[in-house]
Amino acid sequence: MTDSCPYRTISIIGVGLMGASLAGALKASASPPVIRGSTPDRENGEKALRRGLIDSYTPSNREVVSGAELVVIATPPSSIPDIWEEIGPVVSPGTLLTDLASVKQNLHAIYLERFSSVFPRYISSHPMAGRELTGVDASRPDLFRDRLTFLIPFSSSPPGEDLERLKRLWTIAGSPRQTVVESREHDRILSLISHLPHLLSFSLLETLVQTTDKKTIPHWNWPSQRGGALKDMLRIAWSGPDLWGDILLQNRKELLSSIEDFTSSMDVFKKFLVAKDREGLISYLKTLQAKAHEDMHHERHS
Amino acid sequence: MTDSCPYRTISIIGVGLMGASLAGALKASASPPVIRGSTPDRENGEKALRRGLIDSYTPSNREVVSGAELVVIATPPSSIPDIWEEIGPVVSPGTLLTDLASVKQNLHAIYLERFSSVFPRYISSHPMAGRELTGVDASRPDLFRDRLTFLIPFSSSPPGEDLERLKRLWTIAGSPRQTVVESREHDRILSLISHLPHLLSFSLLETLVQTTDKKTIPHWNWPSQRGGALKDMLRIAWSGPDLWGDILLQNRKELLSSIEDFTSSMDVFKKFLVAKDREGLISYLKTLQAKAHEDMHHERHS
Repeated sequence: MTDSCPYRTISIIGVGLMGASLAGALKASASPPVIRGSTPDRENGEKALRRGLIDSYTPSNREVVSGAELVVIATPPSSIPDIWEEIGPVVSPGTLLTDLASVKQNLHAIYLERFSSVFPRYISSHPMAGRELTGVDASRPDLFRDRLTFLIPFSSSPPGEDLERLKRLWTIAGSPRQTVVESREHDRILSLISHLPHLLSFSLLETLVQTTDKKTIPHWNWPSQRGGALKDMLRIAWSGPDLWGDILLQNRKELLSSIEDFTSSMDVFKKFLVAKDREGLISYLKTLQAKAHEDMHHERHS
Repeated sequence: MTDSCPYRTISIIGVGLMGASLAGALKASASPPVIRGSTPDRENGEKALRRGLIDSYTPSNREVVSGAELVVIATPPSSIPDIWEEIGPVVSPGTLLTDLASVKQNLHAIYLERFSSVFPRYISSHPMAGRELTGVDASRPDLFRDRLTFLIPFSSSPPGEDLERLKRLWTIAGSPRQTVVESREHDRILSLISHLPHLLSFSLLETLVQTTDKKTIPHWNWPSQRGGALKDMLRIAWSGPDLWGDILLQNRKELLSSIEDFTSSMDVFKKFLVAKDREGLISYLKTLQAKAHEDMHHERHS
């Protein structure tokens, strides 16, 4: 069964990796909506237009939102309050708004303080997908396929039908599972499953680059010596600095707490090394993998 | 130009992932050598025989080494001294020995103390390849393709022709680049490019599993919520506990020092978070990626 898109007209602010991928996914669906896009990057916008990802392009965010049923804000987290400010006067109260920011608590607080009456219908989205590349060129209509999308209602009134329609939109975009969570809960989960991993990958790259700087190991040449393990662990270290500096700072409180958790976990392993406890380490690793497998099969009752 | 194998008969002790992959790679070469294999795991050994990876199978390490031109010990690092002890009396002095252990300093010390006159021709090998699976079933003839192999001469006499022949063997096995290093240097490099990444992946998995245990986040379900970033960062967390507990302990000294380096790197990022320094973080990430790119193109002269 192919579901039809619950919106006839969608406006996307920010036609980069995420915005253009969403546009492409919806355009590939059974009954594609009319999609209008805005971005200050004229080249990206016109490229998206030429490729048929959007039906019209304007550099003006105010122009793009007028009369839209759904507005999707697909720009970096820290830019969103300014965009709210900008489009507030021209968005009609009947419009549903969403964004794709990776961090929600700060945004939600600003929304409640200044924008809840401006945008009475607002449900924040976060599809668990991304790439280490940016822009229209990196976009893919299958970016969201089989991924989970978090939905975080910002409006205090129960979103009811809006929530159901937005869920359908994400299903059509390729993300068949959605979980409705609160903004703090979202940020705690994300700090552990996404922001901490990125910070670890950045830190690992930093360790390697520092080792090059120190020149203490004669044949050191990590790029040519690395195997598949290091390649995997460094893939996300190439993620865009502007976006990721923004994300890590936006979620600093939860991330600092996740770093503490991680440090404790690393200490567990350090203790085995310091104590030269080979059998203890092996047995700990086995238990860890068994617990992780139980998590994967939802079988843990302890 | 296809090079021919520099050995006519090779004996492989341990027909698991690494040993069977090496056998498969050599058997796929232009002039495959006769390969004999031993392993206490009869099922694995007979499977390797049936698949044509080896020409004969015996559970006896003593039997397999007799008359071989080259003996490859492809068992976990901690088992190697016992195997040396076992085969010492039956290996002829003309035989070249190698092993595929991931850690070398401890082994080298034991070699110098007790085995240098037993095995006067010994060059340790470490191809930078592996998988998170074990056994003949996981083996692949292309496992070493385009990977680098470290060669660590254990014998004090200059290995000369042996080194050239062993290099040719690895080239034929798919690993066209070899770097000759000392055992301590090898272990320092490996602690940074392989053992630390594994420890980080194990520690990250531990953090996630602990979060499940604590039950403090209502909708927490990392296996279904994770995106591509976390999948990549956890791939090596499924590596075999017996082998990896062994490797991490064998290289504990260098690894503990690499953990210190990593902790300093993580502290750099923590400081930006604590100071709420978004611009500083972004600029640091940009510099880091630029330096890493320079490393990749060998352009750093600072």
